Amino acid sequence: MKFYTDYLWFNTSRRREFINITHEVKSALKKSGIQEGMILVSAMHITASVYVNDAESGLIQDIEDWLQKLAPDGMNYRHHGTGEVNGDAHLKNLLVGHQVIIPVTKGELDLGPWQQVYYAEFDGQRRKRVVVKAIGE
Amino acid sequence: MKFYTDYLWFNTSRRREFINITHEVKSALKKSGIQEGMILVSAMHITASVYVNDAESGLIQDIEDWLQKLAPDGMNYRHHGTGEVNGDAHLKNLLVGHQVIIPVTKGELDLGPWQQVYYAEFDGQRRKRVVVKAIGE
Amino acid sequence: MKFYTDYLWFNTSRRREFINITHEVKSALKKSGIQEGMILVSAMHITASVYVNDAESGLIQDIEDWLQKLAPDGMNYRHHGTGEVNGDAHLKNLLVGHQVIIPVTKGELDLGPWQQVYYAEFDGQRRKRVVVKAIGE
Repeated sequence: MKFYTDYLWFNTSRRREFINITHEVKSALKKSGIQEGMILVSAMHITASVYVNDAESGLIQDIEDWLQKLAPDGMNYRHHGTGEVNGDAHLKNLLVGHQVIIPVTKGELDLGPWQQVYYAEFDGQRRKRVVVKAIGE
Repeated sequence: MKFYTDYLWFNTSRRREFINITHEVKSALKKSGIQEGMILVSAMHITASVYVNDAESGLIQDIEDWLQKLAPDGMNYRHHGTGEVNGDAHLKNLLVGHQVIIPVTKGELDLGPWQQVYYAEFDGQRRKRVVVKAIGE
Repeated sequence: MKFYTDYLWFNTSRRREFINITHEVKSALKKSGIQEGMILVSAMHITASVYVNDAESGLIQDIEDWLQKLAPDGMNYRHHGTGEVNGDAHLKNLLVGHQVIIPVTKGELDLGPWQQVYYAEFDGQRRKRVVVKAIGE
């Protein structure tokens, strides 16, 4: 039984940013030496998401617009009583989810042809990270 | 340590469809011979979901109506600039999620009494699939 | 290879309640004796969620208000034709998700500094439960 743990660091220039991390997840899997098992990719923050979807720039803008509509920023959230201004980022995190777990088959991520792994930053411009953990043989 | 991988294929007659796949997941688990571990059920497409909820036809129609309200089709999504017309299906996928992982205890899916595993198709009428991967002993 | 399964029971006094279960998940991990692996925390009901976010009371109220806005109770859901009145709770479950899987590294939950595990009850005042399953070495 093998275990492999890695951390990906981000420091985005914009508040919201969508970053394709498929290559980094593949690299972690290769380093793990695991041929059969699963690899977990999980944001370590409560104002960012990890999801699997398409690497198409129009769609990514659609996703951002849609998240702004369903969980808008600039609202008077109770959370802002703490001095924070990122209530919307917490709700966006809950909507999209903070993690995915990808099956590993014959040493590869067992994803469909259009599936790409994304880190979605909703409150960036500071150092944040994602844990990548592989388990298998 | 055992690993078992299977793929479920779908080709729905309607664009949107909700299919109870609990039986298929149980069959895969039985074939795996795994008594303790976990089984991952994950859509391999970015316009379909896998979720756990109730097998009640009224509720399923409520879910479809609700998804249409929060992520409507027929909108002018930027993604449609690529020639696609399925922007809504991508958003529905993000809202519901594309995977679940079910604990396996004493050779059975460790689900509550009302929990059923569903494949939710949001852009069907073509061949699509779900990966089922069991890991354990 | 080790496996450890535990069940957490809840019986909330209010219909909706948010309960920090991080301590209970840590206890289960300690009992498992697992140093490297993963721990799954999964609601066994279709009207409750498990999520990871902040232990801040203002934010928790924001989350409840937001869920009421996106999946309101008191609506005339088709599901209510069965005699149930909890259609909203099913939709809230789908929105937030019913499970998280937490990496375990060096015997600890590998969470970020603000990440807390929550059980979100959307249709309480009766006995309900969460399965906690650890897998690893």
